[in-house]
Amino acid sequence: MSFVRNAWYVAGWSSEFGDDLHALEIIGQSLVLFRDSAGAIKALEDRCPHRLLPLSKGKRIGDTIQCGYHGMTFDGRGTCVRVPGQDNTPQSANVDAFEVEERHGIVWVWMGAPDRADRSLIFDLPEFSDSNWHTHHGGHLHIKSHYLNVAENLVDPAHVSFVHPTTLGNSASEDVPVHVSTSGDVIRAWRWIRNGPPIGFFQKFGGFKGNVDRWHYYDLHLPSTAVIDFGSIDTDLNCPEEERDRGVRIFAIHFVTPVSEDYTIDHWMHLRNTAQGDQAASEQMDAMFNMAFAEDKEILEAVHEAEKRPQRRRPIRIAIDKGPNVYRKRIRDLVAAETTEDLGDPVRPVFIEK
Amino acid sequence: MSFVRNAWYVAGWSSEFGDDLHALEIIGQSLVLFRDSAGAIKALEDRCPHRLLPLSKGKRIGDTIQCGYHGMTFDGRGTCVRVPGQDNTPQSANVDAFEVEERHGIVWVWMGAPDRADRSLIFDLPEFSDSNWHTHHGGHLHIKSHYLNVAENLVDPAHVSFVHPTTLGNSASEDVPVHVSTSGDVIRAWRWIRNGPPIGFFQKFGGFKGNVDRWHYYDLHLPSTAVIDFGSIDTDLNCPEEERDRGVRIFAIHFVTPVSEDYTIDHWMHLRNTAQGDQAASEQMDAMFNMAFAEDKEILEAVHEAEKRPQRRRPIRIAIDKGPNVYRKRIRDLVAAETTEDLGDPVRPVFIEK
Amino acid sequence: MSFVRNAWYVAGWSSEFGDDLHALEIIGQSLVLFRDSAGAIKALEDRCPHRLLPLSKGKRIGDTIQCGYHGMTFDGRGTCVRVPGQDNTPQSANVDAFEVEERHGIVWVWMGAPDRADRSLIFDLPEFSDSNWHTHHGGHLHIKSHYLNVAENLVDPAHVSFVHPTTLGNSASEDVPVHVSTSGDVIRAWRWIRNGPPIGFFQKFGGFKGNVDRWHYYDLHLPSTAVIDFGSIDTDLNCPEEERDRGVRIFAIHFVTPVSEDYTIDHWMHLRNTAQGDQAASEQMDAMFNMAFAEDKEILEAVHEAEKRPQRRRPIRIAIDKGPNVYRKRIRDLVAAETTEDLGDPVRPVFIEK
Repeated sequence: MSFVRNAWYVAGWSSEFGDDLHALEIIGQSLVLFRDSAGAIKALEDRCPHRLLPLSKGKRIGDTIQCGYHGMTFDGRGTCVRVPGQDNTPQSANVDAFEVEERHGIVWVWMGAPDRADRSLIFDLPEFSDSNWHTHHGGHLHIKSHYLNVAENLVDPAHVSFVHPTTLGNSASEDVPVHVSTSGDVIRAWRWIRNGPPIGFFQKFGGFKGNVDRWHYYDLHLPSTAVIDFGSIDTDLNCPEEERDRGVRIFAIHFVTPVSEDYTIDHWMHLRNTAQGDQAASEQMDAMFNMAFAEDKEILEAVHEAEKRPQRRRPIRIAIDKGPNVYRKRIRDLVAAETTEDLGDPVRPVFIEK
Repeated sequence: MSFVRNAWYVAGWSSEFGDDLHALEIIGQSLVLFRDSAGAIKALEDRCPHRLLPLSKGKRIGDTIQCGYHGMTFDGRGTCVRVPGQDNTPQSANVDAFEVEERHGIVWVWMGAPDRADRSLIFDLPEFSDSNWHTHHGGHLHIKSHYLNVAENLVDPAHVSFVHPTTLGNSASEDVPVHVSTSGDVIRAWRWIRNGPPIGFFQKFGGFKGNVDRWHYYDLHLPSTAVIDFGSIDTDLNCPEEERDRGVRIFAIHFVTPVSEDYTIDHWMHLRNTAQGDQAASEQMDAMFNMAFAEDKEILEAVHEAEKRPQRRRPIRIAIDKGPNVYRKRIRDLVAAETTEDLGDPVRPVFIEK
Repeated sequence: MSFVRNAWYVAGWSSEFGDDLHALEIIGQSLVLFRDSAGAIKALEDRCPHRLLPLSKGKRIGDTIQCGYHGMTFDGRGTCVRVPGQDNTPQSANVDAFEVEERHGIVWVWMGAPDRADRSLIFDLPEFSDSNWHTHHGGHLHIKSHYLNVAENLVDPAHVSFVHPTTLGNSASEDVPVHVSTSGDVIRAWRWIRNGPPIGFFQKFGGFKGNVDRWHYYDLHLPSTAVIDFGSIDTDLNCPEEERDRGVRIFAIHFVTPVSEDYTIDHWMHLRNTAQGDQAASEQMDAMFNMAFAEDKEILEAVHEAEKRPQRRRPIRIAIDKGPNVYRKRIRDLVAAETTEDLGDPVRPVFIEK
């Protein structure tokens, strides 16, 4: 098991959650979500305690869910409020409820111990509330790969030269070394490619005539939110690292949600300091991101398939792996710490016998 | 393993069996069936003892089956009558034969010890031969769920209010208690809903103007044949329980055939004391049953999927589970008894090695 | 594990290998093949040692392959010649290379210990270079069955009467005994059917008017190349066994390539002493072979499915199994010998942990 449980994960954009019952799975836990009459999103274990039918197959009745098999009914806190055919509603009939937070149009669910659900830990950026920045929710990508493969790719600037040669990378960067540093729960991998031709993305959106200085800062926030700060500026302006706002600057954000050991959903969006309110630019960027992320998806699924085969030799690690190496070690440490803390075993192997 | 072996199971309607070789699987046993020149249905193990090719891939030659690989040939008793390329036909070359009985257009196979195949145990009803009753063979439903889930649903009147709200149930019955009794190999769950509006089915076929008394008697015959006696009568007539024939009365019958631990086939038909010989009524009823059983199928497959996942907690049982609880206990007892009797292990885990 | 590793296996026809990267799997080993600028076919392990991406997902750069994820680059000997982002290329970064030989338009790969790759062991026939014989590359068949099932079928003349009654066999041969002998690495099963009607194939291509003597010699060369020498001649000519060239004679050759324990590819071709240079005859023969091999495929896949189920009884063996029995024993001996020799475990069960 490689999931960090005490964490906020993204369930989707706010716009995806309405009156209907919405089923999804995060770190192996089935959830049913709905927006109640007060507008608050509720998240419950998606499993009737009686015959295990997913509650998402039942129906909304006011602010409760009625199971589709025998009508057991649960409120937004997971409390069983009705068992048809009997008067009492035993405590054992309750289902787990999960803390939910909506912020900047993003829906977060806390998958750990309820009493640890600290809302101050939810990922945030000052630029979300800065009118000089344009925010655009992109899409989401379903990837048949382990979330660590997906997330490590987001602290790995080196792959863009080879996986995205026409959009996010080009050969000018192939041998430029990558720096890695960590600060609290953020692992940063970055590099500047000075005095090179603009990549496809900035040929399209930067309006550059000559060579540019280009940067990539990959900030991976534990357990699996990535902010990729990338941009370009005329080489002639000789931009210092800390003055990136003078150039064309994009924050591509990935919310990586582990579904199971074999499946991951990546919700992606971006902020930019250019083309405010320009819907056409947003759509063109989405098209380019979609193309690039489809390239990642193909690689990440092939890697996952390969990892499931028995191996004669251990994989090797190379210099550009610094970011992924640090990231995987931090995750292992978090998982190990949660295991020894005993959060009440997430899934004990009890199976239904006939 | 949860199959009762010493039992008659339904292979299909008589009309499904002709000259062709017909492959099917019951309680994990592959069978090939065909109707011989005298009109009798023969059932053999569907496995050539030589290279294991299913005999159903071979061809009929008179009243024998010739294997499609090397021509080994078997008669209707499973005796090997020819091994091409040699003169003798060793006893070890025989295949198992199974007792078959056709009755009222229904084909039964005995899956247990051959010397125990008692034809008096085959399910029957006096109404099959009663000219006041109309018999109509319906269809069959393939369900990716364990047969115990399918069969327990048929001794569970409580689910109809929630799973079939537009056809077989309505909200009037939601909280009416269910009675359970047993008599020999029959488990009965029943309830009367007095003085309520007719359900969709009887709105269509009963011609009722006002409120009705409605009954559901679910008789589950071990191991897995269910007769659902349901009907309605004007409330004003104040009908006693034993005089149900005065109302509009239907016997919906389900022959639940376990295929494997993950697959079940339900052959369903009905008898009725109304609309004799009315083919249009039969078709309308089939349409309604098809709709209702598709609702069951969706629930039963979702429950089966859920049961295959590891569980953190045991499922709970509630008041309306009385029928299912009794049924599952009876099955467990039958399976345990067969195991200690040693019927000659149905499937010992011997695998082909290369 | 039932694969012979120290052997040459067929990867395909020469015409299938061009500039592109060509992925395939032989005895569980993933390979990437390409033809270099000098025209030589190179075969490498299809796995980047870094993140395990199949190299076949990367791209050709000159005579090297660049991995599609981070650009690690390998030459045709498997030596890593570049690791982007660092100066050194560690020895542990190399991938395995496999010996390749092209001969008569057939591409062979040695899957065993490289120092044992003896090219004199590659299957050959004098008729490949004999102008009296016409050579025609046929097709290839993908079969979801174990290669031992596929290969044993090719030292089993008895099946043709039942599996191929309209093309390669007929009922005249059903009870004619099969002889078996071995000579070095070749197991031969054969029989003559004297004075019978010609089979479908020779009705079409032999121009026979009356009865014929017909022969089948099945030579199975270990581990899995089969030459089926079959033909017919007028019965009146009273042909001795060693003078088969006087009749119409075909060598149908099957190169059976084990892919995995569940998958086999059969490349098939033929040589003939008739209809030289007649392309229409080649196509008609291909059509007939295609029909016959589709019949084999159906049987062999059904047998494989059946073998994967647990068995109550061991399969029996019959008189016509002599060839298959000898063959399977020889393979078992070869595999056992390789195991005790310790070739350096082909696949040790090391799995990637997260």
